Amino acid sequence: MNIQVTPQPAVAARLFKEAMSRVTGAVHIVTTDGPAGKAGFTATAVCSVTADPPTLLVCVNETSSVGQTFMANQALASNTIGSEFNDLAMLMGGKTPLEDRFAAAQWTPGSQGAPMLEGAMVAFDCVTESSHVVGTHRVLFCRVVDVRLGAAATDPSLYLGRGFRRLAPV
Amino acid sequence: MNIQVTPQPAVAARLFKEAMSRVTGAVHIVTTDGPAGKAGFTATAVCSVTADPPTLLVCVNETSSVGQTFMANQALASNTIGSEFNDLAMLMGGKTPLEDRFAAAQWTPGSQGAPMLEGAMVAFDCVTESSHVVGTHRVLFCRVVDVRLGAAATDPSLYLGRGFRRLAPV
Repeated sequence: MNIQVTPQPAVAARLFKEAMSRVTGAVHIVTTDGPAGKAGFTATAVCSVTADPPTLLVCVNETSSVGQTFMANQALASNTIGSEFNDLAMLMGGKTPLEDRFAAAQWTPGSQGAPMLEGAMVAFDCVTESSHVVGTHRVLFCRVVDVRLGAAATDPSLYLGRGFRRLAPV
Repeated sequence: MNIQVTPQPAVAARLFKEAMSRVTGAVHIVTTDGPAGKAGFTATAVCSVTADPPTLLVCVNETSSVGQTFMANQALASNTIGSEFNDLAMLMGGKTPLEDRFAAAQWTPGSQGAPMLEGAMVAFDCVTESSHVVGTHRVLFCRVVDVRLGAAATDPSLYLGRGFRRLAPV
């Protein structure tokens, strides 16, 4: 079926960002290491794709060297954090030199070497299988080859309205 | 650069699902309407991709007729809900007949006809630009052509540990 949709200009980037600020995001520290070097950043744009085969996706900015490092290494770890790591999330999302970012926490390597955060609520050890570019960003489709479950996920780091938030107790 | 990653089998689907249950998701009601008909489902697998051009992605199950309806219509609305719509989320995610699902709330059509939920925290009016299949699911890359901002996003619907949760007050 070939359906004609009415041509429409996209909304302004400013309005899009305002709208997206109303979508609560779990906070992930995404890392890689390997032949192209070590890198890491903080993201909410991480999403489950399918359990068959177990796959998640991560959106990375193609206009930064970090994105190219992730693509070249073909492997990453996505570490879903509790609110006790909010300071680390700020550090990994900022302009701090690479080594200082990683020195602020304890890590152990995943199967391909990507740093997995000790104490994460859950850490996904992934191999990048394919990717898809949209504008400034590349979406990495990642086969999950191992997971590490932390302690019970009672106090996740959440981001809404351009700030960190906490869950209400059960 | 061509890097050899160590071949690794994926984790078991059960373990992947347990790990994903530790990732908090904002709850979205995703809808479509058009020449291929009306459809809707509840999702947490909705993610911002880039603001240039304004794009989000939605993962839909290819093994269901709903997925094919979304693909054929080439347009959708992603409605990010507050917790007052948790019952609607259950209804849209269940086996209730299509018309009964939509009868449970107020909707107005987006630019391509997709039902936009009255009272949503934010509703994204989208045209599907491209897609990428991974296993059982298709990832729809959606240009955002309009947004409707609801009242202040103070009480989002959140899903964690296979149940709904609330934010702590600021």
